[in-house]
Amino acid sequence: MKRYKREDPVSYALGITLTFEMLNYAPEHSRKVYIHSSMERGESFKKLEELCKKLNVPMEFSDKPFNILSQKENCYVIGEFEKFRRKNDKNADHVVLVNPSNAGNMGTIMRSATGFGVTDLAIIKQAVDPFDPKTVRASMGAIFRMNVAEYDSFEDYEREAGNRSLYPFMLKAKKKLPETEFSSPFSLIMGNEATGLPDSFLNVGTSVIIPHSDRIDSLNITIAASIALYEATKKNF
Amino acid sequence: MKRYKREDPVSYALGITLTFEMLNYAPEHSRKVYIHSSMERGESFKKLEELCKKLNVPMEFSDKPFNILSQKENCYVIGEFEKFRRKNDKNADHVVLVNPSNAGNMGTIMRSATGFGVTDLAIIKQAVDPFDPKTVRASMGAIFRMNVAEYDSFEDYEREAGNRSLYPFMLKAKKKLPETEFSSPFSLIMGNEATGLPDSFLNVGTSVIIPHSDRIDSLNITIAASIALYEATKKNF
Repeated sequence: MKRYKREDPVSYALGITLTFEMLNYAPEHSRKVYIHSSMERGESFKKLEELCKKLNVPMEFSDKPFNILSQKENCYVIGEFEKFRRKNDKNADHVVLVNPSNAGNMGTIMRSATGFGVTDLAIIKQAVDPFDPKTVRASMGAIFRMNVAEYDSFEDYEREAGNRSLYPFMLKAKKKLPETEFSSPFSLIMGNEATGLPDSFLNVGTSVIIPHSDRIDSLNITIAASIALYEATKKNF
Repeated sequence: MKRYKREDPVSYALGITLTFEMLNYAPEHSRKVYIHSSMERGESFKKLEELCKKLNVPMEFSDKPFNILSQKENCYVIGEFEKFRRKNDKNADHVVLVNPSNAGNMGTIMRSATGFGVTDLAIIKQAVDPFDPKTVRASMGAIFRMNVAEYDSFEDYEREAGNRSLYPFMLKAKKKLPETEFSSPFSLIMGNEATGLPDSFLNVGTSVIIPHSDRIDSLNITIAASIALYEATKKNF
């Protein structure tokens, strides 16, 4: 076992909570569960053992993976899973991340999207690795419930995503978020953390701005995406 | 010079952008600007030099503070400032953080609050250090434009904050955010990252929930605070 790399066919869920999410929502991709020697053999362990047995996922008792994969103390369980490819649902709402560059941010957006009932994420490359253990951790396991698909270009995405309403979020947009009506299926499109979306997106669907004071340059990308998700889905809750 | 500690009377703005924010918005608290030997003597340097001269803030040319204070490469400027205490404005809207435990989250919330025109932050102890360089960095300098005040208890805060509408954000609340009318001056009250607000806050003002699917336990605290800020202030933008 070595440090995680993007080209590896497997990735890891660090910690017992994430490992349960992996087993419950991606059982077909769960390959192994590692148990640290300091793990207490209490209720949680029993539940984990039963679930692994039921799903036919082997448990391995070894401290080595923890030294390699986890910097955190108190991490006594690691789930190993095959990276899965799921197609985006043409009839569902999507979040689209164009050239995202931060694994933690991507995971946090997965968590928010799942929270607001949007379980399709489209990633336009170049992009950070959606299966990086940091992404998995920041998603709090939401990644296992989502359809995450990667595309080489936005044009490729458009071609495959079916007929839908596109809402790129940009500082140069004219339409203010509180005045925007969202019609499903929709795509909320967010740009790179540092550079935002290119101006060409002003010609894509209805571009939207989250108005804010000029005392800050922009909102953090996870904040902007989550506010967009909240506003676009709030009639459902 | 030593590593930053909470009990120090000064803290640091790491990087040139943050240092400009410090000089522009907290000139009376700016004590010194450190310049790394790798800093190019271009336009930015000239502007910085002029501003320091104008404000009578000494520049010190030394690489040592960078080795001690900054893990990042490409950090060639550090601003040193006295920690300042400003009172919360009784007539303004506030964000109140009860027992916040993460410096980065606190800074991100400062940035969102400033973005939505709320420049008063009340912190109820026990709490993470609002002047930690990590907070300063995550705030993107917003901290220098804010009134940040700490209180020993929520009762102390209520006593000093004047007559206002209180909105604690809790998963057990009955009022849904999209149906909530906010009347100024208001306080948006957020709990600890892991534990949320204690049940006693159900009896404080109007408790509010941000409805989301049961596929996640809760939203990230920075996300919840920012959505609350967006909804409570959107009529102003």
